Amino acid sequence: MDLKQIANDTSKVLISYLTYQAVRTVIAQLNETDPPRAFWLQGFSTKERIQDGEAYVQALFQERQDLAFRILTVREHLSNEICDFLPEMVRSGIQQANMQHRRQQLERMTQFDPSASNSNPEQSTGSESESS
Amino acid sequence: MDLKQIANDTSKVLISYLTYQAVRTVIAQLNETDPPRAFWLQGFSTKERIQDGEAYVQALFQERQDLAFRILTVREHLSNEICDFLPEMVRSGIQQANMQHRRQQLERMTQFDPSASNSNPEQSTGSESESS
Repeated sequence: MDLKQIANDTSKVLISYLTYQAVRTVIAQLNETDPPRAFWLQGFSTKERIQDGEAYVQALFQERQDLAFRILTVREHLSNEICDFLPEMVRSGIQQANMQHRRQQLERMTQFDPSASNSNPEQSTGSESESS
Repeated sequence: MDLKQIANDTSKVLISYLTYQAVRTVIAQLNETDPPRAFWLQGFSTKERIQDGEAYVQALFQERQDLAFRILTVREHLSNEICDFLPEMVRSGIQQANMQHRRQQLERMTQFDPSASNSNPEQSTGSESESS
């Protein structure tokens, strides 16, 4: 498990996702102030194009540099505002989801034997895994 | 700009991405110890399926619960190991990428007038945006 590589990849995915959120924000703002421009940016921002945030920004600079500059500013603002909350949100989100999956699975495994509801699903799974 | 909603959405995307990284990690481990099982998990983990981490785990529990439990454990481990580094990585990543885009664009705008290289691209863009 190459944690450093995974952290790098995750950071890149996050940057592209925040770029996408910045584009959505700018489109929403333009819808209020300049609908034709919003319509143009919506059309430019196809799903394929926006997958790679940096390539998207580079392409946008060729077409409408004022919108490109604006998206840079908005994504920097977004990263400053929300990044600090993410570690706790992600950790607790995963812990809660995991607990729920384990509980559901435990209920499924014990549905014909309610008296066994205190057994540890991880242990029984481990032994199944070894025997397979 | 609904920062709370954006933070929630970003956290969900991150959790799904860490689930994907957990699946990749488990496949790599199985490739060493149990290649047929690795092959099976690879086939099960299609791109469409893995887009939604929770639905993926739920489907996997129906097929191979030991692998599902293992992926839960690995993604929790990943989140504990890398989440704390992400805010700084993302913030500095965006700042660096933005600086690079702005410099490139500045060079493009001033390529016929080297003496103007101290002008502020954001300002000139702002006025263009207003006049359009």
